[in-house]
Amino acid sequence: MTEQKATNVHWHEGEITREDRNQLLNQKGATLWFTGLSGSGKSTVAVALEKALTQRGHLTYRLDGDNIRHGINKNLGFSAEDRAENIRRIGEIAKLFVDTGVITLSSFVSPYRSDRDMVRALHDESDMAFIEVYVDVPLDVAEERDPKGLYKKARAGEIKNFTGIDDPYEAPVQPELVLNSHEMSLEEEVEVLINMLEERGLLSP
Amino acid sequence: MTEQKATNVHWHEGEITREDRNQLLNQKGATLWFTGLSGSGKSTVAVALEKALTQRGHLTYRLDGDNIRHGINKNLGFSAEDRAENIRRIGEIAKLFVDTGVITLSSFVSPYRSDRDMVRALHDESDMAFIEVYVDVPLDVAEERDPKGLYKKARAGEIKNFTGIDDPYEAPVQPELVLNSHEMSLEEEVEVLINMLEERGLLSP
Repeated sequence: MTEQKATNVHWHEGEITREDRNQLLNQKGATLWFTGLSGSGKSTVAVALEKALTQRGHLTYRLDGDNIRHGINKNLGFSAEDRAENIRRIGEIAKLFVDTGVITLSSFVSPYRSDRDMVRALHDESDMAFIEVYVDVPLDVAEERDPKGLYKKARAGEIKNFTGIDDPYEAPVQPELVLNSHEMSLEEEVEVLINMLEERGLLSP
Repeated sequence: MTEQKATNVHWHEGEITREDRNQLLNQKGATLWFTGLSGSGKSTVAVALEKALTQRGHLTYRLDGDNIRHGINKNLGFSAEDRAENIRRIGEIAKLFVDTGVITLSSFVSPYRSDRDMVRALHDESDMAFIEVYVDVPLDVAEERDPKGLYKKARAGEIKNFTGIDDPYEAPVQPELVLNSHEMSLEEEVEVLINMLEERGLLSP
């Protein structure tokens, strides 16, 4: 019944562990937390990294507004309390994915330092890798791109409490990585990210 | 940069999809929703299935009280409203795992039919496999096992609203599978589950 297909996995008594799943996947689960202004290029680089990693045979999953705000967090609004709960839940979900062995790409503006630090602490207490990637472009670059037309609406007063316009973005103090997406090609960004994952032992070089 | 390791994956333009991840993992993501009384043997069979599938090279993850109630759902209590929200969130998390390609083993009493049907509907609307596994033993068998001593406390009135004692368990009407864990060996249960996963095309035979 239990034919052995994965020959690099050493079996033991007891329940299957996080390490077993990492061995099965030939990678270490980790959270890459992309933070930055709307329009900074967080999702663009996450999509490109996902593709590069999948092509190398690695399992990734992206957490973003599409699958979170319309799913588990659809009962949350944009009050300060709900924003914090939004980020907390994403952090807890990311941890479940890391426990599964998945390289998890989280892509949210997440403008408040305290919220991001809470997610970092949640990972630290479970000895899980949390990599804060600050996608840093000047506001005028993000506003010029305005891929969803949100800055225009915020400037017109149609959207209130928009990060960068009438709500603050608190930049990371010590992010693991800074990507200036307006000064790098997408290929360069992906290369820097993959090198970092290898250097941290999350992927085999 | 993008060395091809997984030779069975066909690359295409655009974003990585659920189908790509299924191909990478050589399985189809699905939720196995184990429901039944406390002490019915839900977690026992989930742990055994997880081990058998991992030994075959398949990626599984168990969602249970340990990683859910102490994590993402630690801000929920046991009111009717909170119980429903607990199951809703678990259902939404299971969907994210299915989207990743993981065979997801959810192990909760989940006593209310309406809650389980809601999770089934969430899966259906995203064309995801939801397999309700009713771990069905008579109350006296579960109470005799009483692995956590909870029935004893409930009979003594130390725990209120305990399923099977002073709160109802609403049995599934049309579960995909019924396991009578008091009349089957654990090996038999696992074999039945794996056969079912193969028959449904979630694993290759």
